[in-house]
Amino acid sequence: MAVNLNTPNPADLLPVAGVRLGVAEAGIRKANRRDLTVIELAEGSRTAGVFTRNRFCAAPVQVCKAHLSGAAIRALVINTGVANAGTGEPGLAAARETCAALAKAMGIGTEQVLPFSTGVILEPLPVDRLVAGLPKAIANLRADGWFDAAHGIMTTDTLAKAVSKQVQVGGRTVTLTGISKGAGMIKPNMATMLGFLACDAAVAQPVLEALVKEAADLSFNSITVDGDTSTNDSFILIATGKAGNAEITAAAGADYQALRDAVVEVSIALAQAIVRDGEGATKFMTIAVERGKDRDECRKVGYAVAHSPLVKTAFFASDPNLGRILAAIGYAGIDDLDVSKLRVWLGNPEEAVLVAEHGGRAASYLEEAGSRIMKHAELTVRIDLARGNAAATVWTCDFSYDYVKINADYRS
Amino acid sequence: MAVNLNTPNPADLLPVAGVRLGVAEAGIRKANRRDLTVIELAEGSRTAGVFTRNRFCAAPVQVCKAHLSGAAIRALVINTGVANAGTGEPGLAAARETCAALAKAMGIGTEQVLPFSTGVILEPLPVDRLVAGLPKAIANLRADGWFDAAHGIMTTDTLAKAVSKQVQVGGRTVTLTGISKGAGMIKPNMATMLGFLACDAAVAQPVLEALVKEAADLSFNSITVDGDTSTNDSFILIATGKAGNAEITAAAGADYQALRDAVVEVSIALAQAIVRDGEGATKFMTIAVERGKDRDECRKVGYAVAHSPLVKTAFFASDPNLGRILAAIGYAGIDDLDVSKLRVWLGNPEEAVLVAEHGGRAASYLEEAGSRIMKHAELTVRIDLARGNAAATVWTCDFSYDYVKINADYRS
Repeated sequence: MAVNLNTPNPADLLPVAGVRLGVAEAGIRKANRRDLTVIELAEGSRTAGVFTRNRFCAAPVQVCKAHLSGAAIRALVINTGVANAGTGEPGLAAARETCAALAKAMGIGTEQVLPFSTGVILEPLPVDRLVAGLPKAIANLRADGWFDAAHGIMTTDTLAKAVSKQVQVGGRTVTLTGISKGAGMIKPNMATMLGFLACDAAVAQPVLEALVKEAADLSFNSITVDGDTSTNDSFILIATGKAGNAEITAAAGADYQALRDAVVEVSIALAQAIVRDGEGATKFMTIAVERGKDRDECRKVGYAVAHSPLVKTAFFASDPNLGRILAAIGYAGIDDLDVSKLRVWLGNPEEAVLVAEHGGRAASYLEEAGSRIMKHAELTVRIDLARGNAAATVWTCDFSYDYVKINADYRS
Repeated sequence: MAVNLNTPNPADLLPVAGVRLGVAEAGIRKANRRDLTVIELAEGSRTAGVFTRNRFCAAPVQVCKAHLSGAAIRALVINTGVANAGTGEPGLAAARETCAALAKAMGIGTEQVLPFSTGVILEPLPVDRLVAGLPKAIANLRADGWFDAAHGIMTTDTLAKAVSKQVQVGGRTVTLTGISKGAGMIKPNMATMLGFLACDAAVAQPVLEALVKEAADLSFNSITVDGDTSTNDSFILIATGKAGNAEITAAAGADYQALRDAVVEVSIALAQAIVRDGEGATKFMTIAVERGKDRDECRKVGYAVAHSPLVKTAFFASDPNLGRILAAIGYAGIDDLDVSKLRVWLGNPEEAVLVAEHGGRAASYLEEAGSRIMKHAELTVRIDLARGNAAATVWTCDFSYDYVKINADYRS
């Protein structure tokens, strides 16, 4: 039921010089499932990441943070089936053991490995089965392994998510390829949004760290399916430095801007793919909030609308129920919001109609126009706060019978 | 499908000296529906209220606030069908016209009337039909009109909500009777939670104002069905002063405490009735958070758990999916929460089992115990934050197919 999302064409996924990926069936929770992925990074690669703010952050997230602050990262290992979250000290030991085993097999240091897990929360990671599967994943390492890796990190996603792009940076062709997974912020015990994006540009570490934050802010941190933040969410940006461009050492200039725009574009595509594949989704909605005092209040309004079960069920029903949108804006937490100045449009830019102004329904609004627009599979709610110059966009999906069905099913 | 809630027995609803109630069919939105209620208060009555914080607050809420700051209130008028919210200046004029018409008919001042509306947002209030119905409602005014009034303020509630209680205050019997309505924070265009609670005690105005805030905080402001805050939410506390007790002039002492406890008890029963009748509800859940640093952070945790669609669907499925509860606690917004100290119990006090401690599943926890408890129609999640001495309780219901069905149905 994914909204305007298809399985990526393997031929469209470009290898990134310095990156090889291998997948294996390790039988971590179920047999005959590709549940283990290894990503190998060439020497000289740089890596930066952003992680869940959930206080119950999973063991692998804690280990990732520690390892990213130290040695140069040379490998990533991702397992599905078990999230290794809510597992206390034994969970941390299991994540470290995973890194040590991969490091030994690859002849690198334990601290040069980043571990990621997604799956059931509160269950111990079967580290023996995971470690036993590593040699096969390593044997499968290939530069064109992106398509397989996109499948290897899936849990209850209905489709694999992967995007490639090329861009000119300092006279060199830079290739970016990324994969992501996730269909609810937390699936029925199948936790987690994961995103991995590699490019072959040469980028200084501080620039990469700033860029991963900016890209996450504009992509993975601007989506919501159900408002539930996972214990394992991670987004990793890798720069292998193999493209031959002059190293980008500052977050400024044409080279930086070209790379930055490409990274943001691919990140948004990967993030939107998660919403398009949202649990039970039948509609893809863009909530565009503009002219707020700051980005934070724009995001508050965007998320209030995007999280409202009443708004989401109205979109599922193709019901132009404007009162629910206005009510959500009203409780978003802007205490001094002047609703008499607010304006709201429904519809994508080419068809948008003004639906609310002067604190109520726009005089020009016709229910027929609203009904027509609401039938589309993709649509925009544009909200003008008329308070300042900041803006923010949030992407979400609707709320259907299938969301309840998927999440009320017993853990499978 | 209401959870452990029955239609009140008319004989259990006690008249409150100084209060008469009358209901009429005014055909405001649909014919043959009791949609207009008038409540008359004897001279000398005192009235205090709390209202929605939604910035799109409805016209009647704005008029209520203005009138409560001025003259002594002598009448309330409540219509269903149309919420008179998102209606701009014409909506304010309609609310004032309603008050003026009732005031004229009753020989009181316009500012002595409080108006309330609940129903469709963004549609104009048919004030002519409302005003035409007033004489009939006035003609029906009766001291034992509580049962009818509880029905007169219903929108898509499946059951009327009304509670009475008597308590000794200063050697006199004080009677309290209250009614409430609401089944989602916003129904499909049928907006609003409303609560009206009258007693015949003599209470000074400042004490009454403090008491309505405290009672609302512990009752109507501690419930959630879907997290959507209506544009019209109102809770009104009336004290007619007819019981003959010595006027309570301070929020202290045995008299105050007796009255306060009774007001809180009735308020909680009225608020819980709304959750029990929540849209599609099959379970009534108490989220009890204790040992937080302050009440605010306890409420944050309680609401994060109560609002999580994943927690709510798990309860609907009777699935003891503890990971979802822990994840919701983790993203509740307490940045320095130490999850290793946290403890969580599942089940009402007499059967509660420890399910989580030391950052993961409790060693003593058995899935069978969780499954057994989750089958109950009423259950408690108790959360010990181990950070301080504050506590808060939030009541909510589960999230079922019927919630989506009810809210995805086109406006009816």
